[in-house]
Amino acid sequence: MSTAQPAKGTRDFAAEEVRKRQFIFSTIIGVYEEFGFEPLETPAMENIETLTGKYGEEGDQLLFRILRSGNFLTKVAEDELTTEALNKLRAKIVDKGLRYDLTIPFARFVAKNHQTIGLPYKRYQIQPVWRADRPAKGRYREFYQCDADVAGAKSALSDSEFVLMIDQVFSRLNMPRVTTHLNNRKVLFGIAENHGLEGRFIDMTVAFDKLDKIGVDGVAKELANRGFSETEVHALMPYLNLNGSNEELIAEMRSKFTNTETGNVGLTELEEVLEYVSAINIVHSDVKVNFALARGLNYYTGTIYEVTLNGVEMGSVASGGRYDDLTSMFGLNDVPGVGLSFGAERIYDVMEQLNLFPKNQTGGLKVYFTNMDAKNALVSFKAMNQMRNAGIKCDMFPTPSKLGKQFKLADKKQAQYVVVIGDDEAAKNLLALKDLATGTQHLLSVEEAISHIKNGQ
Amino acid sequence: MSTAQPAKGTRDFAAEEVRKRQFIFSTIIGVYEEFGFEPLETPAMENIETLTGKYGEEGDQLLFRILRSGNFLTKVAEDELTTEALNKLRAKIVDKGLRYDLTIPFARFVAKNHQTIGLPYKRYQIQPVWRADRPAKGRYREFYQCDADVAGAKSALSDSEFVLMIDQVFSRLNMPRVTTHLNNRKVLFGIAENHGLEGRFIDMTVAFDKLDKIGVDGVAKELANRGFSETEVHALMPYLNLNGSNEELIAEMRSKFTNTETGNVGLTELEEVLEYVSAINIVHSDVKVNFALARGLNYYTGTIYEVTLNGVEMGSVASGGRYDDLTSMFGLNDVPGVGLSFGAERIYDVMEQLNLFPKNQTGGLKVYFTNMDAKNALVSFKAMNQMRNAGIKCDMFPTPSKLGKQFKLADKKQAQYVVVIGDDEAAKNLLALKDLATGTQHLLSVEEAISHIKNGQ
Repeated sequence: MSTAQPAKGTRDFAAEEVRKRQFIFSTIIGVYEEFGFEPLETPAMENIETLTGKYGEEGDQLLFRILRSGNFLTKVAEDELTTEALNKLRAKIVDKGLRYDLTIPFARFVAKNHQTIGLPYKRYQIQPVWRADRPAKGRYREFYQCDADVAGAKSALSDSEFVLMIDQVFSRLNMPRVTTHLNNRKVLFGIAENHGLEGRFIDMTVAFDKLDKIGVDGVAKELANRGFSETEVHALMPYLNLNGSNEELIAEMRSKFTNTETGNVGLTELEEVLEYVSAINIVHSDVKVNFALARGLNYYTGTIYEVTLNGVEMGSVASGGRYDDLTSMFGLNDVPGVGLSFGAERIYDVMEQLNLFPKNQTGGLKVYFTNMDAKNALVSFKAMNQMRNAGIKCDMFPTPSKLGKQFKLADKKQAQYVVVIGDDEAAKNLLALKDLATGTQHLLSVEEAISHIKNGQ
Repeated sequence: MSTAQPAKGTRDFAAEEVRKRQFIFSTIIGVYEEFGFEPLETPAMENIETLTGKYGEEGDQLLFRILRSGNFLTKVAEDELTTEALNKLRAKIVDKGLRYDLTIPFARFVAKNHQTIGLPYKRYQIQPVWRADRPAKGRYREFYQCDADVAGAKSALSDSEFVLMIDQVFSRLNMPRVTTHLNNRKVLFGIAENHGLEGRFIDMTVAFDKLDKIGVDGVAKELANRGFSETEVHALMPYLNLNGSNEELIAEMRSKFTNTETGNVGLTELEEVLEYVSAINIVHSDVKVNFALARGLNYYTGTIYEVTLNGVEMGSVASGGRYDDLTSMFGLNDVPGVGLSFGAERIYDVMEQLNLFPKNQTGGLKVYFTNMDAKNALVSFKAMNQMRNAGIKCDMFPTPSKLGKQFKLADKKQAQYVVVIGDDEAAKNLLALKDLATGTQHLLSVEEAISHIKNGQ
């Protein structure tokens, strides 16, 4: 006998969860589509070479590897079969892996199809990814990503569209108001360059990125731990203490940037994004320049952003940024990219906590037909299918059995109405329609019942 | 540099294909929902024990196996590392596999959750499955299944709903009219039993199942090859030569069934299904009793059916049947099932061939905004976002560049309109809206352009 458990770190989604998740996905898709992004779907399995070396050493460890099909040892010589040769062996018995994110498959697709799709190419992709992480609360081995990216566009106009889409998505989901924290990696680099610290740029950003968790003093300690001298720490601290409007922040930073060309380019890029965003009436978000924001991924080269919910402790619920080089690893040079990823799992958790899922969207069955006896089953069956033809979701108990049991099941299925057709009702060509919420019951013809239900009476 | 090819036997789906596939899926979902089926999603990966031994020896060969994560040799002793120990070794280094169909995960889910979901439980599931088959035309290693099943229902009422759903789905897809071939495994068993051939029931059904490919004489030869005597073949042939209406066919079979109880039960079940189906006005299908239909899968025990398109050579585009035991392999006894699977890949191919996809459903972008120069980019950007707010799908070229190039891209993106805002238009607070199909151009305000587009003028 096999266990009925799903694999560790994976989940089954029953009806209510599917519908709620679908509500999030379709809201995001609605916005993506409106902004001219096109759907893309790529396979769950990629050639293993497509995946390895793309996500750093840790990422390589977290790839799910698929065994060669058939005789998987066909490429292995007998004397190679030692545990010491582990990695070498793995390379020979594995030829595919599971998708680890949606960006690499997107890059592969663009490299392969750039001539037919035409650049700039805007795509969205909502599919599961798999990571062999240790499962924990909120951390799964299979989870969905909800990405949108533009390939082949260099303008701040493209970057600004992501800020606008974030505003729309959280507004339409009826979520709490959000803050979009905006920065530019060139500004971060400029801070380092301004003080001759280009060589330790990564160390600096890693420390900066912890600001909201450990505070200014914490960042100072972190920098010291990472080998920055007291003078250097002293030089960097003022950048974390800036205050004011976005314009004031940028002006103040510009006044400090006496010794960095890259930093000033970054500030100009930031201003351009803000100019486009300000031209549009955003309704549900505060867009704030945040010079401490660094984002972990080192391939970002321009705009970076992260979204937090105002008044809700949840961390980032969406994020993204611009990268100079999307596709050269697949043989296509000079294609920059800029993208966005929504944290669907976190969004789901917040909406669940705050009870934000719309009731009418998530419900299932409308009417449950009871099965009284073999004689009237066919009468009920006909009435039910007449309702279905009118677009009403119906179901019926398949065999005659006790009414109590059937009502209990109707309740479990969250049906709004139960229909009973016994001899009396059948003789009059009517049905008894019972509203499960109010307990009221009406004797109606099928046509009357359909309009009763459709009018929500 | 990595190859930009997807893994062998897998496909990327670009926008147009995604939309067309989605059209098929959402049509099927619409019908499933109307009939009271609830969505279910299960993980791509299952514990390997959940999958092995469920699909026969061939199925086991076709499973994609996932290597244990981390040090995958941790359970292997050094002296076990010989190629001879292949299967033993595989069992130790693999702990998960990719979903091979949707029925086993459904059964696992029902066994685990039967108390909370309540039986009978009707679920639909539209997800990819993976098989390490040799790729060929129309045969992929990753493909979608579109299943609906009922668990825990014993009545012909449930079986009949699948026949009604088939009718609705092909009607709503605007496909050619279909024939649903209906049989019952107990009738097939009855034919064998009637002549004391129960022990060779499987051999008989395999031969019968080839009737539409090789004809009556071919089946006779096939039976002979499988060791049936001349007398036995002679006894079986008349069952394949029956003619008449469904009622006549059943009556004739009943008159022959002098020596089989099971066979007569099968005929009664068949009559019950037909009684429910006949009570409803089906619009797009012919339901035909076909006593030669056997269906390959040996777990079917009652109703079986297969759907073909009238006048189109494509084989079966949907099929299913009833099985007595769905979940005992996961520790839950006495749960019968009945199900349906649509062949989405074949349906797609036919709809493509016959040009049946609705034009307005599959299109993408409505309006493409050109980018004339930096000065007017912001004006265009504002106008575009005003249109988006009105629900119109828009996009804009991100950087100022040659108009010809931009029009070419608009064409590639299948936009219906192009908007140009240069100095003249901007000065008048107007935009030039060009219809790409007709070539006509109008000078309009944004508001006028929105109503022009919405009215489809």
